[in-house]
Amino acid sequence: MSTSERVSTRTDQPTDREQQVLDRIDKARRRKPKVREERVTLAHGSGGKATQTLIEAVFLDAFRNPLLEPLEDSASFPVDAGRMALTTDSFVVSPLFFPGGDIGELAVNGTVNDLAVAGARPLHLTAGFILEEGFPIEDLRRIVTSMTAAAETAGVQVVTGDTKVVQRGKADGCYINTTGIGVYEHARELGVATARPGDAVLVSGPVGEHGITIMLERGELDIEADDLTSDTAPLNGLVTALLDAVPGVRAMRDATRGGVATILNEAARAANVSVTVHEDAVPVRTEVRGASELLGIDPLYVACEGRLVAIVDGEQADDALTALRAHPLGTEAAIIGRIGDDPPGMVLLNTAFGGTRIMDLLVGDPLPRIC
Amino acid sequence: MSTSERVSTRTDQPTDREQQVLDRIDKARRRKPKVREERVTLAHGSGGKATQTLIEAVFLDAFRNPLLEPLEDSASFPVDAGRMALTTDSFVVSPLFFPGGDIGELAVNGTVNDLAVAGARPLHLTAGFILEEGFPIEDLRRIVTSMTAAAETAGVQVVTGDTKVVQRGKADGCYINTTGIGVYEHARELGVATARPGDAVLVSGPVGEHGITIMLERGELDIEADDLTSDTAPLNGLVTALLDAVPGVRAMRDATRGGVATILNEAARAANVSVTVHEDAVPVRTEVRGASELLGIDPLYVACEGRLVAIVDGEQADDALTALRAHPLGTEAAIIGRIGDDPPGMVLLNTAFGGTRIMDLLVGDPLPRIC
Repeated sequence: MSTSERVSTRTDQPTDREQQVLDRIDKARRRKPKVREERVTLAHGSGGKATQTLIEAVFLDAFRNPLLEPLEDSASFPVDAGRMALTTDSFVVSPLFFPGGDIGELAVNGTVNDLAVAGARPLHLTAGFILEEGFPIEDLRRIVTSMTAAAETAGVQVVTGDTKVVQRGKADGCYINTTGIGVYEHARELGVATARPGDAVLVSGPVGEHGITIMLERGELDIEADDLTSDTAPLNGLVTALLDAVPGVRAMRDATRGGVATILNEAARAANVSVTVHEDAVPVRTEVRGASELLGIDPLYVACEGRLVAIVDGEQADDALTALRAHPLGTEAAIIGRIGDDPPGMVLLNTAFGGTRIMDLLVGDPLPRIC
Repeated sequence: MSTSERVSTRTDQPTDREQQVLDRIDKARRRKPKVREERVTLAHGSGGKATQTLIEAVFLDAFRNPLLEPLEDSASFPVDAGRMALTTDSFVVSPLFFPGGDIGELAVNGTVNDLAVAGARPLHLTAGFILEEGFPIEDLRRIVTSMTAAAETAGVQVVTGDTKVVQRGKADGCYINTTGIGVYEHARELGVATARPGDAVLVSGPVGEHGITIMLERGELDIEADDLTSDTAPLNGLVTALLDAVPGVRAMRDATRGGVATILNEAARAANVSVTVHEDAVPVRTEVRGASELLGIDPLYVACEGRLVAIVDGEQADDALTALRAHPLGTEAAIIGRIGDDPPGMVLLNTAFGGTRIMDLLVGDPLPRIC
């Protein structure tokens, strides 16, 4: 409904009544914007006054930077000639807050990591929010603050955004899309399709902590694991360290949905090679191993949000391990397997008991909404 | 749950039983991927087999292009030195299908338009889907097909994407985020903050059709309007025609949420000028006018998805009008108002009855989820 003031005049000069209205509006506008509501309303998604207040008082206040500040519908920035990377990810994790992080930190790190493991330097992020009517403004602030901190740590900026509000029962509090662009500062061609027999497979740290943390936080398992926290972290620094030290890096991937096993299956197919993983060599924390057993799921299928899988020239595997371990996010890195040629397209697991089994792609979704 | 086949062997050569398993998996993989389910399941969001099938059989099949095809976590492409634009938008329109379009077409056009009105040539889009468990696969195909057609019309490609699935009751069928990047091929500085007294305000066609179409489609008003369809359209061609013809274009905006009135308020504030709109000059279809009256809302606040507002040097207003009208999407363009200097930051409407009223930003949201 238009709430425009109706002013009955046909002259060009404002009447006294009009001037009062103008003065009142002007005064209201000069106030620092402040969200008065405690919860998100449909009006916050209207594009009108409430949207503007939300954007200025919550998003701009936290993300503030010269590219975002004009609040135009798009951000603009100069680029050098070269190659760029573009990636997108939506986050629907439940619960929104969990030990070691929240959806905001996850949304920044996840997109930063997709750019980093592609070998690109993350540059700018966009943030698209879908909010459920009734979502607490304080929770939104907490998420946005956490995004700002994560962006600062990763050396990126949120340069443009969008907010939609849906009715109660049409979302689950807050969903976030982050899309990122990055620049390639080297000419190396990375990609799982370049894996070849003799290459080594490394992980940068213990697997499955993020996924298990989320499951435990939901209270679906009767397990206490006070020390377990999400591994969410920006991997761009670790990636740079690895690329600088090891010319023979073939590919990197962050082991999110589907975990390490899914990535290795994608690599095996893309390069038409086999991958053999030594179960004993895979770092897994005791709490993760215990919970995984109760869930009947292999930790190699559980999501991490701050671990990468690297495929490197076999002769440079030790150098890669040294480079990873020298970085704070890679102290527990390990060489977990090898690329072979037979059977092509397959991942085999040499189990701790001396057997071998095929580690195929997952069917079903044992851990929904972990990111 | 891991569904890996357990194969009991400790030798390097596959046994007969193993070979059978390998052959079966190999055969399954060589089949053209096909989604067998009729509805989206949580497994489609797992990152595993079902996700891969969905991506290959639905998304890749429709969007297929060389940048998307590697299905890595990010797309990479070369860029020339210059200035780029980045914009993001989430779409939560209800209903998903409506006269004249659907959420897919809207998602492509909306992001193309945000780039176009900024003066950038739209280049690449990302597509992030949040799907509700149980959403019909056929509806998803229809949406994706419509996105492909819209992208082709606009001359852009979907180069990377993401799919998440949430439980029944945690979304409303399908939400889509599209993020777009574009390149500036000129050095003009456009922006509503550059508006100055004497400038003219134009719209490229009748206002409010999209918003009213959505409202009528929801059946919330007892009105028949068979001829009314959404105005969703890609504006990049129209923008190029205008920029080529008129050096004095100050700013363009697509009139989505909040409609023309909201954009003019943003311009008035950003440039600290006044805007006077002549109600009589604003093109509005009869059906839109009628429905707006029943809703008690001014059509100037109702969303369009294929109309732009342009602010141009007053002396070039007629040239701008001619350029817009020469384009198929601008045949009903009109000059609707002028920029002045007083009262600064305000939008005034000269009504059809000869009065004047302040046209402020909307409070509340009379038309939720129209985009």
